[in-house]
Amino acid sequence: MTTFVFGHKSPDTDSTCSPLVWAWFLSHHQPGAAEARLLGTPNTEAQFVLKRWGFDEPEHMLDVEDGQPVVIVDTNNPAELPANINRADIRAIIDHHKLVPGIETKNPIEVTIRPLACTATLMWQLMGGHAGHAPESIKGLILSAILSDTLEFRSPTTTDFDRRLAEHLAQDLGIEIPSYAAEMFAAKSDVSRFSDEELLRMDSKEYNVDGVEFRVSVLETVAPQTILSRKDSLVATMPKVAAEDGAQQVLLFVIDILKEEATLLVPNELTRKVAEASFGATVSGDTVVLPGILSRKKQIIPALKVA
Amino acid sequence: MTTFVFGHKSPDTDSTCSPLVWAWFLSHHQPGAAEARLLGTPNTEAQFVLKRWGFDEPEHMLDVEDGQPVVIVDTNNPAELPANINRADIRAIIDHHKLVPGIETKNPIEVTIRPLACTATLMWQLMGGHAGHAPESIKGLILSAILSDTLEFRSPTTTDFDRRLAEHLAQDLGIEIPSYAAEMFAAKSDVSRFSDEELLRMDSKEYNVDGVEFRVSVLETVAPQTILSRKDSLVATMPKVAAEDGAQQVLLFVIDILKEEATLLVPNELTRKVAEASFGATVSGDTVVLPGILSRKKQIIPALKVA
Repeated sequence: MTTFVFGHKSPDTDSTCSPLVWAWFLSHHQPGAAEARLLGTPNTEAQFVLKRWGFDEPEHMLDVEDGQPVVIVDTNNPAELPANINRADIRAIIDHHKLVPGIETKNPIEVTIRPLACTATLMWQLMGGHAGHAPESIKGLILSAILSDTLEFRSPTTTDFDRRLAEHLAQDLGIEIPSYAAEMFAAKSDVSRFSDEELLRMDSKEYNVDGVEFRVSVLETVAPQTILSRKDSLVATMPKVAAEDGAQQVLLFVIDILKEEATLLVPNELTRKVAEASFGATVSGDTVVLPGILSRKKQIIPALKVA
Repeated sequence: MTTFVFGHKSPDTDSTCSPLVWAWFLSHHQPGAAEARLLGTPNTEAQFVLKRWGFDEPEHMLDVEDGQPVVIVDTNNPAELPANINRADIRAIIDHHKLVPGIETKNPIEVTIRPLACTATLMWQLMGGHAGHAPESIKGLILSAILSDTLEFRSPTTTDFDRRLAEHLAQDLGIEIPSYAAEMFAAKSDVSRFSDEELLRMDSKEYNVDGVEFRVSVLETVAPQTILSRKDSLVATMPKVAAEDGAQQVLLFVIDILKEEATLLVPNELTRKVAEASFGATVSGDTVVLPGILSRKKQIIPALKVA
C-alpha cells in the first residue's frame, strides 16, 4: 500500500517540497512506495518552486482513509491535519515545530523533531549518505524550502546547519542565492488576486493564548503595501473568518522580509492589548510596526500574551 | 544550570540506565552539564545492574522546578512523569514508546522516538562516533538495558539492531550474555520482600481502553510461583490500588521469561471479558495462561479491548 507523505494544511513551500523529498527517499529503493500529497492549494511561492524544478503539483487530499499508511511532515499538530488523522496508520513524523498534544499512535513509530529552520534540512540529515544521490530537482526543492523558511537566512530560526546546507546545495546546483530568493519572494508577494478571506487563512495557525483562541496569520512579503493598502477590508473580514474557524480573533502580521519588520493590524481593544503585552509596543493607530519580528514560531508565538 | 535526565516513574532497568548514559554523553565535553535522576526506587534488577557496573543510585526526584532544564527518556507520557512536567524547560525527549498526547513545549525541541526495544539502543545511535568512546561502565549499562527490555532477545520488540548492539557490547566487555542475563533476571525475580501494593505498582502503566481506565501491571520473572502463590492477597489488594490511582481495574500479567508465557490474574467479570476479547482466551478459573505473550508494549496494549 502506497504511503502518503504530507505536511500541514495551507501548504507553504516547506510543506509542499518536503513531502516530495521524503516520498523520493522512501521510493528510492522501492519505486512507488510513497507519494506526496497536499492538504490544500500551495501558496504562490510553492507553486513557483514546483514549476522551477519541474514538478507537477501533487494530488490534493482532504481526508485520510482509516488505516492508510502516512508520514506526517512539517507539523505535529492535529489541528493542521485531516480530522481523522489518528485513525490513519501513522508511520513517522518529521518536524521542526514545538510539540503539541494531540497525535496518538497505537504502536511506537519514528518521530524526529529538531529545532532547525526547515523540515527539508532535517530530512537531509536523516537521509545520511543517500542525500548526496538526490537528483538536482530534489536538491532544488530542499534549497527552496530552506530559503523560504529562513527568509534567506534573515529569520532567527536559521541555524548554521540550515545555512551551510543551503549554500552547499546552491553551489552544487549553480544557483545564485540572492537572485533565486528574490524570485521566490516576488512569487510569494504576488497575492493581489486573493480574496481577503484567502489572505487571512493563507499562512495561519490557531493558538490558544491565556484561554483565548487566536488565528495567528502571517504574510511574508517584499511588497507590504500590496497588503496594507487593503487594511480596511481585511479588518472587516476578520470577524467572519474568526467565527467560521472557531477563533475569537485573527491576528494578521504583515512581515516585510527586506526591512525585517512586522506590521500588526490592530482593529480593536483585544488586539491592542495583545500588541502591548506581548511586544511592549505602544499602539496609537490601527497598525503597529514591530521592528525585527520575522518569525511566528520563534518570536511571535512564544511572546503572545493577552494582558 | 545542570540538566536533569530522567525516565519514567517506577524505574526499570532502561529508565535507570538510560538517564546515566545520556547524562554521561551530555557531560562528555562539558563536565557537570547533566545529571541522572530517578522518579522513584529502581526495581531489583536495576539495583543489581547499578551495583554490577559501579554506579551509586542516582538521586530521587519527585517534582521538577519550574524552568528546570530536563531531558525526558524512555517515556513521552505525562502520566509517568512529574505532574508539573510541562512547566519544566524540556530540552529533549528520547523514547521508544508510542506517542501519547500530553507533553507540550513552548519552542521546538529535539524529539527522537524510534520503534527499538530499548532507549539505550537509540542513544547509541544518537551518540554516533562518541558511543565508541564510552567507558566500560556506560557500555555495561547499555548492554543491561537491552537485555532487560528484550528479555534476552525473547521479546517480539527486539530488533536486529538491539540484538547486534548487545552482542557487540558483550564481546567488547568480555561478558557471556546467557549467564549475565540469568543473573539480571534472578535479581528481577527476587521480589518476595515487596508488599502486594508494591508488586502491583512495580512495573505498571495506566491506559484507557474503550473508556475504562486500567492499571496494566507486568511482573517479568524466572520464578512465577513466587508471585502466583500470593494470588489471593494480590487480588484482594487490587481494588485499593485501583481506587488510589484513579483506575477501575488492575490487570496483573505475570510474565514467565523462560517459558515465554504470561499468566493473567482474573479476579472478576470485567477482567474475564478483557481476557476473552483481547486475547481470545477461554477463562475457566481465576487465572489464564497466555502463551507467547511477553511484551506489554507490543502484545498486550495494542490488543486490549473491554468487549
